[in-house]
Amino acid sequence: MKNVYFFSKGRSDGNAKMKDLLGGKGANLAEMAELGIPVPPGFTITTEVCAHYQDHGGAYPKGLEDEVGENLKKLEQATGKRFGDSSNPLLVSVRSGAAASMPGMMDTILNLGLTDKTVEGLAAKSGNRRFAYDSYRRLLQMYGDVVMGLKPETEADLDPFEAILDEVKKERKAKLDTDLDADALKDLVERFKGAIQKRVGRPFPEDPKEQLWGAIEAVFKSWNNPRAIKYRQLYDIRGLLGTAVNVQSMVFGNMGEGCGTGVAFTRNPATGENAFYGEYLMNAQGEDVVAGIRTPQPISTLEKEMPKNYAELLAIRTKLEQHYRDMQDIEFTIESGTLYMLQTRNGKRTAAAAVRVAVEMAESGMIDKKEALRRVTPEQIDQLLHPTFSPTEEAKAPLLTKGLPASPGAATGAVVFSAEAAEAAAAAGKRVILVRIETSAEDVGGMNAAQGILTARGGMTSHAAVVARGMGKCCVAGAGDLVVHYAKGYFTVRGKTVRAGDPISLNGTTGVVYQGGIKTQDPELAGDFGTLLGWADEVRRLGIRTNADTPHDTEVAVKFGAEGIGLCRTEHMFFEGDRIIAVREMILAEDETGRRAALAKLLPMQRGDFEGIYKALEGRPATIRLLDPPLHEFLPHDVAGQEEVAEVMRVPVNVIREKVNSLHEFNPMLGHRGCRLGITFPEISEMQARAIMEAACNVHKKGIKVRPEIMIPLVGNVKELKLQRDLVERTVTEVLKENRLTKNDIPYMIGTMIEVPRAAVTADEIAQEAEFFSFGTNDLTQMGCGFSRDDSGKFLKDYVALGIYEKDPFQTLDQGGVGKLIAMACELGRATRPAIKLGICGEHGGDPASIHFCHRTGLNYVSCSPYRVPIARLAAAQAALAST
Amino acid sequence: MKNVYFFSKGRSDGNAKMKDLLGGKGANLAEMAELGIPVPPGFTITTEVCAHYQDHGGAYPKGLEDEVGENLKKLEQATGKRFGDSSNPLLVSVRSGAAASMPGMMDTILNLGLTDKTVEGLAAKSGNRRFAYDSYRRLLQMYGDVVMGLKPETEADLDPFEAILDEVKKERKAKLDTDLDADALKDLVERFKGAIQKRVGRPFPEDPKEQLWGAIEAVFKSWNNPRAIKYRQLYDIRGLLGTAVNVQSMVFGNMGEGCGTGVAFTRNPATGENAFYGEYLMNAQGEDVVAGIRTPQPISTLEKEMPKNYAELLAIRTKLEQHYRDMQDIEFTIESGTLYMLQTRNGKRTAAAAVRVAVEMAESGMIDKKEALRRVTPEQIDQLLHPTFSPTEEAKAPLLTKGLPASPGAATGAVVFSAEAAEAAAAAGKRVILVRIETSAEDVGGMNAAQGILTARGGMTSHAAVVARGMGKCCVAGAGDLVVHYAKGYFTVRGKTVRAGDPISLNGTTGVVYQGGIKTQDPELAGDFGTLLGWADEVRRLGIRTNADTPHDTEVAVKFGAEGIGLCRTEHMFFEGDRIIAVREMILAEDETGRRAALAKLLPMQRGDFEGIYKALEGRPATIRLLDPPLHEFLPHDVAGQEEVAEVMRVPVNVIREKVNSLHEFNPMLGHRGCRLGITFPEISEMQARAIMEAACNVHKKGIKVRPEIMIPLVGNVKELKLQRDLVERTVTEVLKENRLTKNDIPYMIGTMIEVPRAAVTADEIAQEAEFFSFGTNDLTQMGCGFSRDDSGKFLKDYVALGIYEKDPFQTLDQGGVGKLIAMACELGRATRPAIKLGICGEHGGDPASIHFCHRTGLNYVSCSPYRVPIARLAAAQAALAST
Repeated sequence: MKNVYFFSKGRSDGNAKMKDLLGGKGANLAEMAELGIPVPPGFTITTEVCAHYQDHGGAYPKGLEDEVGENLKKLEQATGKRFGDSSNPLLVSVRSGAAASMPGMMDTILNLGLTDKTVEGLAAKSGNRRFAYDSYRRLLQMYGDVVMGLKPETEADLDPFEAILDEVKKERKAKLDTDLDADALKDLVERFKGAIQKRVGRPFPEDPKEQLWGAIEAVFKSWNNPRAIKYRQLYDIRGLLGTAVNVQSMVFGNMGEGCGTGVAFTRNPATGENAFYGEYLMNAQGEDVVAGIRTPQPISTLEKEMPKNYAELLAIRTKLEQHYRDMQDIEFTIESGTLYMLQTRNGKRTAAAAVRVAVEMAESGMIDKKEALRRVTPEQIDQLLHPTFSPTEEAKAPLLTKGLPASPGAATGAVVFSAEAAEAAAAAGKRVILVRIETSAEDVGGMNAAQGILTARGGMTSHAAVVARGMGKCCVAGAGDLVVHYAKGYFTVRGKTVRAGDPISLNGTTGVVYQGGIKTQDPELAGDFGTLLGWADEVRRLGIRTNADTPHDTEVAVKFGAEGIGLCRTEHMFFEGDRIIAVREMILAEDETGRRAALAKLLPMQRGDFEGIYKALEGRPATIRLLDPPLHEFLPHDVAGQEEVAEVMRVPVNVIREKVNSLHEFNPMLGHRGCRLGITFPEISEMQARAIMEAACNVHKKGIKVRPEIMIPLVGNVKELKLQRDLVERTVTEVLKENRLTKNDIPYMIGTMIEVPRAAVTADEIAQEAEFFSFGTNDLTQMGCGFSRDDSGKFLKDYVALGIYEKDPFQTLDQGGVGKLIAMACELGRATRPAIKLGICGEHGGDPASIHFCHRTGLNYVSCSPYRVPIARLAAAQAALAST
Repeated sequence: MKNVYFFSKGRSDGNAKMKDLLGGKGANLAEMAELGIPVPPGFTITTEVCAHYQDHGGAYPKGLEDEVGENLKKLEQATGKRFGDSSNPLLVSVRSGAAASMPGMMDTILNLGLTDKTVEGLAAKSGNRRFAYDSYRRLLQMYGDVVMGLKPETEADLDPFEAILDEVKKERKAKLDTDLDADALKDLVERFKGAIQKRVGRPFPEDPKEQLWGAIEAVFKSWNNPRAIKYRQLYDIRGLLGTAVNVQSMVFGNMGEGCGTGVAFTRNPATGENAFYGEYLMNAQGEDVVAGIRTPQPISTLEKEMPKNYAELLAIRTKLEQHYRDMQDIEFTIESGTLYMLQTRNGKRTAAAAVRVAVEMAESGMIDKKEALRRVTPEQIDQLLHPTFSPTEEAKAPLLTKGLPASPGAATGAVVFSAEAAEAAAAAGKRVILVRIETSAEDVGGMNAAQGILTARGGMTSHAAVVARGMGKCCVAGAGDLVVHYAKGYFTVRGKTVRAGDPISLNGTTGVVYQGGIKTQDPELAGDFGTLLGWADEVRRLGIRTNADTPHDTEVAVKFGAEGIGLCRTEHMFFEGDRIIAVREMILAEDETGRRAALAKLLPMQRGDFEGIYKALEGRPATIRLLDPPLHEFLPHDVAGQEEVAEVMRVPVNVIREKVNSLHEFNPMLGHRGCRLGITFPEISEMQARAIMEAACNVHKKGIKVRPEIMIPLVGNVKELKLQRDLVERTVTEVLKENRLTKNDIPYMIGTMIEVPRAAVTADEIAQEAEFFSFGTNDLTQMGCGFSRDDSGKFLKDYVALGIYEKDPFQTLDQGGVGKLIAMACELGRATRPAIKLGICGEHGGDPASIHFCHRTGLNYVSCSPYRVPIARLAAAQAALAST
């Protein structure tokens, strides 16, 4: 087994396809080197070694030491330097790199190979003694922390190295680090070493090989540090072997003049615009750019400063895009006028950028339409569908400041100053904006919990910006005139003071920060987004419908591309205005006559609702579900509510109370609801069928096509369906006759929801009476898995953490269980009625993984909330692509 | 199509096998006639005609009139009489008779053919003018009521014919009907006719054929009268075409001397003793015996009174039993010294009689053992298992009176005087005794609702006695010194007054009635009962276990033949005495340490429980289920209860209240229970596994074999089972090690309940971790059908009435739905683990129809409550017989 892969210009052992084994960074370094791009040579220790290390209590596979030794020799040959050599020392960086990107989550050591002996060689060779000792003290700082474990003793303490640095600066009356000269830095080195010896009880190793092995082990260990574990959970990164270790010869962007370092994207990662985009710092190490300590220059200014290197960079940009056929995120260093590439990877991007890049690349012929569809995730589409500020509202909002538009979108919330506070507030259901001077890996949980992030320092590629874009969170970074006082719980900006808890608003697309909250508005499908979804429609086989109960929701969904209504819940119409009074009259009625009188009041209202919905659908079909919830949901359960109802209805309060008591259920989920209501009170189903059909006749007469699909809910037994179907059919036929119309004019269907397990396993019988099935996967999950959605919060989180269910089965369909019931029902249903129409209307209808399942299972359509329609269109296309 | 079947000595068209077509009575009349037994000739109009009549709005099939005419001619030839003849008139009875016996439910007309003209012929021919006019007035009464619909105008009114009778008796100063002479009866006839003409507006038909067709139609109509419909519902009589109509030449037991009529059983229907058993009345019509108006003589006295006829009867008794190979219920009439048989059918019998008859017939070689097993229904066994009075308690009870031991058993309850009151009280959960002067078909519902029936009049074959025996209800009939005052709501007996609501007790085996309530005692298996169940054990393939949570229940079940425990619910042990305190401590504990401390207190108690159960099992296996119910069930939900608990536990009441609130669930059935508890609080499962195994070790050391089967409840996903199984296995192994024992010493198993639909459809996966499945069909029905047992009362009755489910699916397994899930789970489970043990522990385990399903599906055993173990043994044997 080969454990170590060498890379160097034109002669790499690995390539870009070996990400699982070499990690993303290592594989791409090998690929770039092979392409002839200037990459400092080095070698990668595989992720298999990491897995071996974790599985064998920290032991390496046999022969690793020899392999590393051989590769070190090759590296010495390639660079012409020698490891530990006092005159021309080879220095290396040791970096982690897994198959999935986990920015900043694992440890890195730079300048490794510096010792008391080699530092002088570096000084002589570079002609810059200050630089040499600065590099040395940086190594000590990183190595002391990461490898030797010299950390602050309490969280409140300053970093021990920073404390010594402050001490030396004070003694030497230096304001900035850069005010310290070579001797001061040498002094610092000595003090750092002393602190390590004293606090850790071991000296800093003067043997470069010992340094190297210490660093390798630290990287392997960092795979399982709490931060990294949390990150993988958050981003659902599973199934990786571990991290690779990249040992690469050092190049220095901080050696003085003609030196610099930068990060760039081959296109704009915020908008997707096809323009080179990035930033750099002169005389700096790469970590300085990412850390956001100094605010860097835009990449375009490099053209003037170092035109030759800039031209080289542009050529590499084109070469990499052509080669990888995707937008790249690159890191480079210029050492004394020579350009080196340190990393390339597919760049993280905003949803808008993902869409634009995919569409433009497809239109330019770089990729095909199918590939373009694969490039955008349905979750990204979700970001594009989040509301933005209403421009008129935004125009009136009081400006606080302006920072960098680090991650687009709009966010409003109360100010918090720590990740913990953000997480606590989110858990309590509050919307907050996380305000930090700068963010670090520790803040990821809080960033995820917040509506948006605002930082005082750092650029477009700072930690805050990169992470926020990945999350699709709105972020304004580097708002330089912000003065944050963590301890006192406020920030000041341009003479204004904003305290923790005060509302602010961020526009991540413009970088503007406002005082107070701003109203938001709905997004629209247009441009590249519309183009991409058009391509999705060409590819997908699943129909996309929407769950909508009002004309407005229906309009929104149709605008987003819905091809009909998959679930119209009539009970939602029962709650509004006067209706609830008539509904309560019906519930309180003592006999059928009383109920019919109340229902007669509801009929014209329901008919009106349906007319509005049919018009909004413009001929598209509408699946309308008859009344589903238990009747007690329409009565108040609290004393005050009951008194109010009693007064409105002019009945004694005890009548209401007794009715509520008599309707009480131990398990309402499994109670008197769905078609059971229609069977006990046929007059309810009758009224609803009449309203549905009278509305259809009225709208039909206006020249609009109407295709109602009447759905009987909660059927478990074909005989329930038969009874309700006969009643509905009778009513519908009556209404058609009254209107002198026929089924040819209004081609209605009658079907059922499959949401009771018994219905799924007897779907062959049920299909005899049903022209369509719509899978009600919310209830099917509750009954199939035997847990109530309202109560499962107490254990379902544990269940997901323990891996009993991979995901919350109410969010992503439990394919192994509930999915089996669905597949069974489809098979049985089609056996009885080959042309039966099959759809899904649970909330899973908008979940991409569940949509893939629906495609594979051969459903005709999925139905989801209006705002998820575009997501479903893309997911359905991807499902079709995945199965061909 | 032949619509009419003639029967006459030695030349019948039909036979006993044609019950579906001719009804039980018609088929057996044909069979008896064919056997050479003296049967008055006649003919039977088929049940198909009834079906045609019902389906075609009261129209008869073509040609029926001619067929009836032809048969009437044959009947005239056979009897030598002529229909409507003035000198030697043919008189007939018209009786209903369906395939299933429905005693007294449909209408009967006697003496049909009498008119003003023929009555004089009858008078001359019989030499008894009074008899002739008495017969005529009886015809008028029956015909006027049944065919012409002359009923009391209000329920409080006297029967209109009885009113006229009273009037005539008053005028003629007659005390009894028999005091009226021929002229008086003739007067009565005229007045009856006048009343018919006046009230109905049509005259009584003087044409015998018109009479006949009127009677035939009335019988067909009576098939769907409310009484008959209710009866069929009550006895679950389904799928019949209708009733046949038997037109039979009249013979008279009331023609004077040498005349009589009786009913008899070929064996004692109460005890099963092989002795001729019956009663008769001299000079009476058959209906007089059954109606219970006069108290008849025991059959044995007939030997002295009419020795020749008695000897004939004995010979027929033997002939019929040999022929039918079952105990017969016969009706006979002696007309002037000539014996006629009017009916034979398999006799209804008590459970004890059913067992004894079956066993004795098998032992005598008349039937084989398998047939004997088929002869007793599991429901009858249930009667034998009902408690009887404790003899010591009964000895001390104050005697009220003594009647006939009409239906054995013991019953205690409050007195009610009407069927309606009995039904209302039963619906309110009260135990009542229905006290009536005599019962009629209208009382059936009330008899079913009561614990027992007491009548003042009527014999062993009275309506009350026959119906009560069929129902397995305790009944004391003909308690002659009872004086019942319906209107005033009390009865007096021997100077004592008993009011509605007062408790009384009936011993149906002895006929004794007691004042007040009497304690009951458990039944025993012995004698014929034991023999029959022994035969059942030879035949059955299903194992029979019991659901038992205590040593006492276990002992009872073992005595009844249980082969192990199929379900031991550990939570029931949690409620007793000190335990509930420790359980509540555990629930209130703030952390694992607190919970473990409380669990440590529970451990020795649980261990003790299991030791007692293992001992009672004497080596039989015990399936023990880990804690199942949600924790809130262990805390009081009312303020007073919470205050009490707070005091006992020395915590503020709000601590209890908050805990109850935090544990509140919307749908507890689908909540935090079953293995979900064990996964959240592994220490509970750990304690229980330890208690189960420590007890096993202790009992094993005493030389008693122990076979614990640890059952993880409410598993829906194999990963839940894996987690709990690993924990249990680890604990069990620890305990064995501590006791220096191995799995060879205590061969334990670990398995799961299949009660969540998801578990059923993924049983292949679950079987990887389960050595056994036990189907928890209560919960599987709730989740599979989607209705909560506690809430379904609101619609399930309607559902059964509408035929959506044939039976309450919580009583009899829903084979078409829940059964499919079970069959699927068995197949999937065996595919993974061919030797997997499969059982059922829901309450369906004691239901005969469900047991048949379990046999067919190939389960290894059923488990039921201790008192149903014998029922299950018989049902399992019958299932085995049915499938061979």
